[in-house]
Amino acid sequence: MEKKYVVGVDIGGTTSKIGVVDARGDVLAQSVIKTETTITAKEFIHQLAEAIKANIVKAGVDTAEIRGIGVGAPNGNYYTGCIAFAPNLGWAANESVPFAKLLSEELSGMPVSLTNDANAAAVGEMTYGIAKGKKHFIMITLGTGVGSGIVINGEVLYGSDGLAGELGHTCAVRRNGRLCGCGKTGCLETYCSATGVARTAREWLAATNEESKLRSLNEITSKDVYDAAKEGDALALRIFEYTGRLLGEKLSDFIAFSAPEAIVLFGGLARSREFIEAPILKSMNDNVLPLWRGKVELLFSSLKESDAAILGASALAWEL
Amino acid sequence: MEKKYVVGVDIGGTTSKIGVVDARGDVLAQSVIKTETTITAKEFIHQLAEAIKANIVKAGVDTAEIRGIGVGAPNGNYYTGCIAFAPNLGWAANESVPFAKLLSEELSGMPVSLTNDANAAAVGEMTYGIAKGKKHFIMITLGTGVGSGIVINGEVLYGSDGLAGELGHTCAVRRNGRLCGCGKTGCLETYCSATGVARTAREWLAATNEESKLRSLNEITSKDVYDAAKEGDALALRIFEYTGRLLGEKLSDFIAFSAPEAIVLFGGLARSREFIEAPILKSMNDNVLPLWRGKVELLFSSLKESDAAILGASALAWEL
Repeated sequence: MEKKYVVGVDIGGTTSKIGVVDARGDVLAQSVIKTETTITAKEFIHQLAEAIKANIVKAGVDTAEIRGIGVGAPNGNYYTGCIAFAPNLGWAANESVPFAKLLSEELSGMPVSLTNDANAAAVGEMTYGIAKGKKHFIMITLGTGVGSGIVINGEVLYGSDGLAGELGHTCAVRRNGRLCGCGKTGCLETYCSATGVARTAREWLAATNEESKLRSLNEITSKDVYDAAKEGDALALRIFEYTGRLLGEKLSDFIAFSAPEAIVLFGGLARSREFIEAPILKSMNDNVLPLWRGKVELLFSSLKESDAAILGASALAWEL
Repeated sequence: MEKKYVVGVDIGGTTSKIGVVDARGDVLAQSVIKTETTITAKEFIHQLAEAIKANIVKAGVDTAEIRGIGVGAPNGNYYTGCIAFAPNLGWAANESVPFAKLLSEELSGMPVSLTNDANAAAVGEMTYGIAKGKKHFIMITLGTGVGSGIVINGEVLYGSDGLAGELGHTCAVRRNGRLCGCGKTGCLETYCSATGVARTAREWLAATNEESKLRSLNEITSKDVYDAAKEGDALALRIFEYTGRLLGEKLSDFIAFSAPEAIVLFGGLARSREFIEAPILKSMNDNVLPLWRGKVELLFSSLKESDAAILGASALAWEL
C-alpha cells in the first residue's frame, strides 16, 4: 500500500500535539494530550501511542499507509532517538529516554524519527512553509526560549553529537548579562525570547520613572508589551527596538558562520513583526560583513501557529 | 597513467608558495614566487603557471600523473572559482577574477580547485594533519587576521554563496570595539590575531605606567609579546590571558552552532600555545552549554608551518 501519510508529534512541557498529515501539508486529524510528567516515560509513551492510533482512525487512513512518525521534543536527539535531561519533562529530566525506540515498539515497529522542536520547525518550513525551495537557511524560534535549526544544503545540521544549533545559548551580551536557565549569563534567550522581552520591561520600569502603560500591570508578558506598543507606548516601542537590535547583532554572527540565503523567524515574539522587523534588519545589516549586506532575507513563518508544530514534526517522517 | 600527485598553491599578499605533493603529504618539490600586485591577473597567472610547470619537472613527475591543482587564496570562492575584491591582491582588489578558469587554461585544461586559505588549511588538517579522521571540526587560523574553515560531516561548509566561515568577523566585543579592516567594529580578528595581540599591547602600554619589557620597543609585534611573556613579563602574560579569554568566549558560540568534536588552531599566534592554551580552554568551557563542557577538544596544528599552506591547498585537489 502506498505510504502517503505521516504523523507529526510535538512534545511540549504542558501539552503534546498529534496530527495526521498528507503530502500537501493538510492536517487530516489532530488532537492534544496533556504531557504528563509525574508518570514514567513508558507510561507517557503508551498514552501517546493510543492518541496516535485514535488520530489515524479519525483521519480515515489505513495504518499501512503511514510512512512513519516524526517527533519534535525538547532535547530530542536525531542520532540517538533519545530525549535526555529535559528539565520540563519529568520522565526525562534526570535520564536519557530512548523515546523513538519505545514509541516504535508501542506502534508495532512503525518507524519513528526524533529531533528537537526547533529542528522540526526548520524541516516544516522547508517542506511546507516559507523556506520551501531554500537549501541554506537558519530557523530561529522565538518562544519562551530561543531555539534554532540550521539548514545546510537542504539538510538539518546535527553536528558530531546530534545537538548542533543551540543558538539561543550563544552570548548576546558579553559581561554581566542576565542569568539563563542553562546556568550561563548573557545568553541570547534571556533577551530575545518572549520571556526576555518581559524581563527587559521589568528591568527598565524598575530603573526609571518613565511613564508607560506597562507600569499599571502586575505581571508583564511580551503580549502586554506588544499591546502597549500598539497604543504607541514609547517604552514598549523601545523594548522592541532593543530586542531587535540584540537579535540582529547575533544574526550577523550566524550569517558569518553558514552564509545562509535567509533567516526564518517563528514563535510568539515573531508575531510582533511590525515592531521588531525593522530593528532586526537594520542591526543585522549594520553588523554583517559588507559582502552579505542586504543580501540575506529575513523571513517570518507563514505556517498557521496551531498547525506549525505538528507540520514541522511530521515533515521529519517523510525522510524515513 | 595513475594520477598520484597533486599541486598545492598558496596565494599570499606578498608571496605565493607552490608545491608538488604525494598522497602521504610529502612535498616533493616547492618554490616561492613574489605575488606581483601591480600587473594584471592574467600576467600573474601566467607567472604562476610557469612556476607550477617548473616544480612538476623538479619533482621528476609526469604531467599526466598530476590529478589537479588546489589553490588557497584570500577571498577564494570554491563555487565560482573566482577571487573577488581581495584588498591585498592588486589585480583582484576591485574586481572578480575567474582565477581557477584562467589558471586551468594556462595549464592545458588541468583541473583547478580554489578556496580561501582557511578552508584550505582545514582540508589540509583533515587530510594530513591533526584532524585526520575527524568529521566535525572548526579550523581557526590565527595569523595577521583570523580565518576559519568549518568542517561538517567531513566536508567544508561553503554555504549558499561559497563564502561561509568568516568567523574572524564575528563580534568579540559588542560596543565600542576596535575598528576592523572590514569596516565593522569589535571583530574577533581585531583582538585575537597576531596584529590584535600587538594592538592590545600598545593600548595597554598607553593606558598605564606599568613596567614592562615591551615599553622599550619601538614597534611591537606579537612575537615581542611572546618573548616578553617567556621572560615572565606580567603585562605580556596578561595580554595572552585576555586574548585567550576573548577567543574562548567566541569558540563557545561556534560550538553551539555546529557541535564539533574539536577546534583546531593554526598560525602565528597558535605558536604561543604555552601562554594561550589554558585561558582559551578555561573561557571556552566556562561559556559553553553544560552539555559540551569539557567535551570539545582544543587542538593545535601539527603540520610544519613551512609546508602547511601548500599541503592545505594541495589537499583540495584530491577531491577533483
